[in-house]
Amino acid sequence: MRLTRRYRFSASHRLHSELLSDAENDRIYGKCNNPFGHGHDYLLEVSVRGRLDPDTGRIVDLGMLDDLVAREVIARLEHRNLTEEVEAFRTSVATTENLALEIQRLLRASWDRTFGVQAPALDRIRIEETKRNYIELV
Amino acid sequence: MRLTRRYRFSASHRLHSELLSDAENDRIYGKCNNPFGHGHDYLLEVSVRGRLDPDTGRIVDLGMLDDLVAREVIARLEHRNLTEEVEAFRTSVATTENLALEIQRLLRASWDRTFGVQAPALDRIRIEETKRNYIELV
Amino acid sequence: MRLTRRYRFSASHRLHSELLSDAENDRIYGKCNNPFGHGHDYLLEVSVRGRLDPDTGRIVDLGMLDDLVAREVIARLEHRNLTEEVEAFRTSVATTENLALEIQRLLRASWDRTFGVQAPALDRIRIEETKRNYIELV
Amino acid sequence: MRLTRRYRFSASHRLHSELLSDAENDRIYGKCNNPFGHGHDYLLEVSVRGRLDPDTGRIVDLGMLDDLVAREVIARLEHRNLTEEVEAFRTSVATTENLALEIQRLLRASWDRTFGVQAPALDRIRIEETKRNYIELV
Amino acid sequence: MRLTRRYRFSASHRLHSELLSDAENDRIYGKCNNPFGHGHDYLLEVSVRGRLDPDTGRIVDLGMLDDLVAREVIARLEHRNLTEEVEAFRTSVATTENLALEIQRLLRASWDRTFGVQAPALDRIRIEETKRNYIELV
Amino acid sequence: MRLTRRYRFSASHRLHSELLSDAENDRIYGKCNNPFGHGHDYLLEVSVRGRLDPDTGRIVDLGMLDDLVAREVIARLEHRNLTEEVEAFRTSVATTENLALEIQRLLRASWDRTFGVQAPALDRIRIEETKRNYIELV
Repeated sequence: MRLTRRYRFSASHRLHSELLSDAENDRIYGKCNNPFGHGHDYLLEVSVRGRLDPDTGRIVDLGMLDDLVAREVIARLEHRNLTEEVEAFRTSVATTENLALEIQRLLRASWDRTFGVQAPALDRIRIEETKRNYIELV
Repeated sequence: MRLTRRYRFSASHRLHSELLSDAENDRIYGKCNNPFGHGHDYLLEVSVRGRLDPDTGRIVDLGMLDDLVAREVIARLEHRNLTEEVEAFRTSVATTENLALEIQRLLRASWDRTFGVQAPALDRIRIEETKRNYIELV
Repeated sequence: MRLTRRYRFSASHRLHSELLSDAENDRIYGKCNNPFGHGHDYLLEVSVRGRLDPDTGRIVDLGMLDDLVAREVIARLEHRNLTEEVEAFRTSVATTENLALEIQRLLRASWDRTFGVQAPALDRIRIEETKRNYIELV
Repeated sequence: MRLTRRYRFSASHRLHSELLSDAENDRIYGKCNNPFGHGHDYLLEVSVRGRLDPDTGRIVDLGMLDDLVAREVIARLEHRNLTEEVEAFRTSVATTENLALEIQRLLRASWDRTFGVQAPALDRIRIEETKRNYIELV
Repeated sequence: MRLTRRYRFSASHRLHSELLSDAENDRIYGKCNNPFGHGHDYLLEVSVRGRLDPDTGRIVDLGMLDDLVAREVIARLEHRNLTEEVEAFRTSVATTENLALEIQRLLRASWDRTFGVQAPALDRIRIEETKRNYIELV
Repeated sequence: MRLTRRYRFSASHRLHSELLSDAENDRIYGKCNNPFGHGHDYLLEVSVRGRLDPDTGRIVDLGMLDDLVAREVIARLEHRNLTEEVEAFRTSVATTENLALEIQRLLRASWDRTFGVQAPALDRIRIEETKRNYIELV
């Protein structure tokens, strides 16, 4: 059984790789390479897989999950310029792919401490950048 | 190949476990523990996996699937107070997790009789309670 | 210029009029007359009409509007059984029509005190009960 | 009769008024005052009111409308940092209110030249910044 | 007070005017001029304005409205080729504009007979053809 | 890691199997058997699974993917009558199931040539025909 919870945050970024030439940056990222940055309203889905607790009828404590995501993810990304302000994107491009990996890393770092030894599994991270595309870590 | 069909129904419930103290019920379910109940518009997805019938270009008879879901699921839950009126929730809390299990049980009980020996498989049940969360049985 | 802000809340209700016979209640409200109640996820839109403040580029202080709606509307309706727990629906049926009027009354009662003499106008209340219908007070 | 056409673009901005103190900027714009900017996926609706041409069954030439919006609006705003790169927001804050006024100004400046003497009327501009709010010029 | 009710139907059409040359048909309707037709999932909104009945808390009998729309509109258009099968589009092009007018005509023809002398007003017809555009008769 | 990209196209079709009797066609396809055809706005999702390129932060070149889908899929189906104009549906019924298989075939035929030896995998095709159902090839 899998529970998925949705969160939203707005942020800006600039897609630009130091490892590529200007021409390559332009070809690969197009308008997203604009030095002034641009932004999106991200939709984040966090999926948890676990066993049903017969006493509560729940597989995870939703309040604890919401607190964890609010503290470790939303508080760091909400209304931020990902490229300029978020440590992880000093050395990697703030694509949706890398953003998904960073969110996974942030959640895993606090997961066991939050949920304890019987922790349900962090099963999937899904980020929708615009209506046109999304990334899943499964 | 997998076909998914969407259905909607509105219902109310109260989240309260007889196995927990009042303080625990309050901490775990929060506002959902309100004794007067509250409600949601549920979005149910039923996914069927099967082989393509080359004559019809279909993997399942949609009319039969709709009739089955209407009769076994929607007719029992639509505009109901799940906690007060649905047998299954006398002994378990009407969380989305338990609601998904009950719908799976209802569909399985009539599945083979409906679709016969060459029945396609009931592959997934997914219930979205609000825009903020959904449960999948996979 | 008009600004609209969206809010969501979940509630349950029973549609039943003391002024009608049982047969009439059944004919008019159908399944919504179920004595155990049922529920919805309401989408509320509050529209404000006003003059642009050239200093801020805003027609209303969004923080003040959100606080007002949270305190006067959401806190009274969120996860409530409207029919059983909300004063206004002791004497009127908790239809979306009456719910819109009640929300308008609640906002108007605190509007001038909140926004002062230069208050922008409360221009429209819109409530969507399900994907199938909505009510507007214009 | 009114026809509405939807367009989407992504952009970033920083809400900050030179006419306000730092404390006021912080109170009024909150996280949106972040100096590094943040972004949104804007949904723009352009509504046209006109008479039905009986030969075509249309009130406006959709190709001409799309070209006009693409050239005058989208090309100037798509993937831009509104605060840093768009002339109009050097002297006004890039709120949704001011963005709606700027789009109205851009469309009006080329409207009659595009559609000629029998031009249908530009009836409404609507911008949705996030799922939580939208601005209408009516 | 205004109530709006949503209905959906799927249909196909070909946009082609006998009053225009082939070149003009191609320029104005583009791909929609394809002789084999193409289709859409239409979203129809019917808005009713009326006085609140204090006994029922309703401004219109929803069952009667649904029956009227089902019988007069949906039954005639659902899964039809509008251009080939619907009388009204023998002499006019099946644009969304003309489709809105036809639906308005169909509803008006049976409105008073359905709702009687105290009939609420048919206030607005709105048809969304695709996510990209909609027509309103107001 | 999986990236999904969304595309939309409108088309019409008639569901009718030469291998079935008229009565069977009517029972299985219902209104979709209408000889004049009807239509839908299809939502296509193409999912790609691959390894993250550390230089670009991407798992696939989005421009190349968009070009491929535009050229091989959208250009062949957009505003078409699938039953009458698309080769594949001369010998099979234009159900969503068969449409998904045809789109998979079209993409596979050009996939390796487009993306080269290090091509990411075409992981999933998903087509939503209406809000009520979708097909996945996984």
